[in-house]
Amino acid sequence: MSTAEETAAGGDERQPWAEVTPEAARRLLVAAVDAFAERGYHATTTRDIAGRAGMSPAALYIHYKTKEELLARISRIGHEKALAILRDAADGEGTAAERLAGAVSSFVRWHAAQHTTARVVQYELEALGEDSRAEIVALRKEVDAQVRRVVQEGVEAGEFEVPDAQGATLAIMSLCIDVARWFRVDGRWTPDEVGALYADLVLNMVGAKR
Amino acid sequence: MSTAEETAAGGDERQPWAEVTPEAARRLLVAAVDAFAERGYHATTTRDIAGRAGMSPAALYIHYKTKEELLARISRIGHEKALAILRDAADGEGTAAERLAGAVSSFVRWHAAQHTTARVVQYELEALGEDSRAEIVALRKEVDAQVRRVVQEGVEAGEFEVPDAQGATLAIMSLCIDVARWFRVDGRWTPDEVGALYADLVLNMVGAKR
Repeated sequence: MSTAEETAAGGDERQPWAEVTPEAARRLLVAAVDAFAERGYHATTTRDIAGRAGMSPAALYIHYKTKEELLARISRIGHEKALAILRDAADGEGTAAERLAGAVSSFVRWHAAQHTTARVVQYELEALGEDSRAEIVALRKEVDAQVRRVVQEGVEAGEFEVPDAQGATLAIMSLCIDVARWFRVDGRWTPDEVGALYADLVLNMVGAKR
Repeated sequence: MSTAEETAAGGDERQPWAEVTPEAARRLLVAAVDAFAERGYHATTTRDIAGRAGMSPAALYIHYKTKEELLARISRIGHEKALAILRDAADGEGTAAERLAGAVSSFVRWHAAQHTTARVVQYELEALGEDSRAEIVALRKEVDAQVRRVVQEGVEAGEFEVPDAQGATLAIMSLCIDVARWFRVDGRWTPDEVGALYADLVLNMVGAKR
């Protein structure tokens, strides 16, 4: 995990994965994120994860019964964080354009700063077990619904011109999520700069009156 | 590999990976794409790939010395195809808006129809060896340059309004590439529909006069 991520991960920007307790369970989760991101879920063993966390496999089993349980927990926390970010922006003050710009810039900043976590959350959905997959699919629908709501409110208020609100929402979410793929800490842009650039491009996309 | 992909993969839309000969080398490559997409590069062995192709590990080694050689070949062919699609569109007839719409819709259609291949090509770059990575990075720069050229020509011709051509190019490429992540053969949209939707959204994004 990069330094940028250590300072701004999980649920709390200062204390990564602060909601995961006890400390040993948190340490194992961070190790699992790193291992899954580096080698992929299927190539990672619980032994690898325990080793990265400086623990024994037996100590891991106290906190997580299976490797899938770790992935499901990472995925749930990641999606809940995404939902909180977008709900805050969608429920905020201001015009639809201001709220959409806020949603996009916060969501992009999270995907840039948390790109390691976000890659695991976005690319390993197929590896989830049946129960956790159903739960995550429901969360993803709620996540999308926040953005679609702001797009529709903008259309109804005459602020946006969007022939297909579902299609525009899909494109907006896709643009934000893919930041996790290409973002590099030593690249041209900071997370804030990508957030501002993308908020502007998305307002163009929905035909916002300027 | 899905049915949609079987009918439209690799270099030729009718004959997937037709440029790979002999037939046994082609069959192994198709098996490698499927295995890498399903389990990830690091979780796949050459034995898995040979098995999927109905061949022995010894028969695989006649065509590919290492697993990395398979990935490098898949990546090279995929990137060359992307470059050909975008170069054709960028070099085509018409205004910058027409050429940008053509580039986006063709590139999106390829990422939708070839989503399995595209995921391997886009998500396993880190697994490439040093030499092939340098080659692929150079190809990716050329791929991006095709789109940036059309964006800049549009700005110079007064067709587009783009404060940051490099940023807009990044967003356009990202939008197209991420289609490989979310596209489902049984989903709401066909590859053609996503291509048309995205071409329209991208023209908005660059402030094309309509």
